[in-house]
Order: sequence, then C-alpha cells, then structure tokens
Amino acid sequence: MPPRTYEHPATDEIAIPRVLFALSEPLRLNMVRMLAERGEVDSIDLGPDLPRSTLTHHTSLLRESGVVFVRAEGRKCMIRLRDEDLEARFPGLLGTVLAGYEDDDA
Amino acid sequence: MPPRTYEHPATDEIAIPRVLFALSEPLRLNMVRMLAERGEVDSIDLGPDLPRSTLTHHTSLLRESGVVFVRAEGRKCMIRLRDEDLEARFPGLLGTVLAGYEDDDA
Repeated sequence: MPPRTYEHPATDEIAIPRVLFALSEPLRLNMVRMLAERGEVDSIDLGPDLPRSTLTHHTSLLRESGVVFVRAEGRKCMIRLRDEDLEARFPGLLGTVLAGYEDDDA
Repeated sequence: MPPRTYEHPATDEIAIPRVLFALSEPLRLNMVRMLAERGEVDSIDLGPDLPRSTLTHHTSLLRESGVVFVRAEGRKCMIRLRDEDLEARFPGLLGTVLAGYEDDDA
C-alpha cells in the first residue's frame, strides 16, 4: 500500500485571510507555538488528550491554510511548521503573532 | 436623548486570537485597509452596497475585538482604526497583515 499523501497549497497560494483564520483559535495557536519550539513532531503530540477527530480537524485546517506541512511516516503522521514559506509570503507575521500570544499568556 | 455609546475593550484586554479572527474575513480586511488609508469615516462608507445588518455585524465584530473605535455623531456612526492601540499590543501586526493582503490582491 502506498504511503498516505496530504494536499498542501503551494507557497504562492497561501492566502492571508486563511492563515489568520487558522491562527485565530487558541487551540491551533498553541499547536503552532509548540511546532515553533520543537520543529517536526508526531501530530499526536500536539493534542494527546484531544479526541482524535478534534485533533484531525485542527491539523487539517492548519495544513489546508498553508501553516503546516504534514507527511506520513509509517503509521505516524508527522507535522511541522511551514515557517520559511510563511516568512517568504508574510514577513514577520508568525513572529509577531507568537510574540503577541506569549504576552497574553504572561 | 443621550448619544448612543459603544462598548470597547481596553487596550490591555485586546486579545490576539480575536484580532486575528476579526482580520480573517476578506470583507473586514478590506474595511480595515480602507480605514488605514482614510482615517475616521462614516461607517456607511465602509460598505455602501451592503445590507445594513451585514455592515453592522462586521463593524461590531471589529469593535468588540478591539480593532476599531466607534462613536456616534448625530445620526452618523463614525469609525476609525485603533492603530496605536494595536501597535502597542502587537507591534508590527497590522502593517504585516495589510502588506500581505495588498500583495495578494496585486
């Protein structure tokens, strides 16, 4: 059986309204913060206590908006931030959002 | 009759998830761009062709998220961007988002 593959928008298809929507939900913003700190992780680690359908909903939305890249590795689903693509499209956005969110938590 | 007044979050209550959600809709993003260019305007000018209820929905959401300031002036409802408050809370965010959106349109 071939490995699962996942659809991703090309870098120049990443649109700011969808990125902002993806980042507008605290659960997803926490996932993005975790990815910014850890690099690529098993997607399960982003929400070990979440129902699987909830986790899939949020990671799919992040993937479809161009915020993360997802790939299969055996039975695992590895996920990482598209930080370079986002930086190329919207310089400074991710850093500004994460900094603003850190401040909120403090 | 006293003039209508509008509720606004204090600057330190402005939260990044709500701001990102407010900016994640193309219609609202266009309104914000217009306000960034024009300063304070009659809110009608933000969507002269929109149903009044649609216009009110979007301007209320922008106001409640801390993106705009609204005040009554006679029968008009004047609206302006809280650009200084947003800059104080999330330095660079508004500029980055508007620049990214301009690029998309080009």
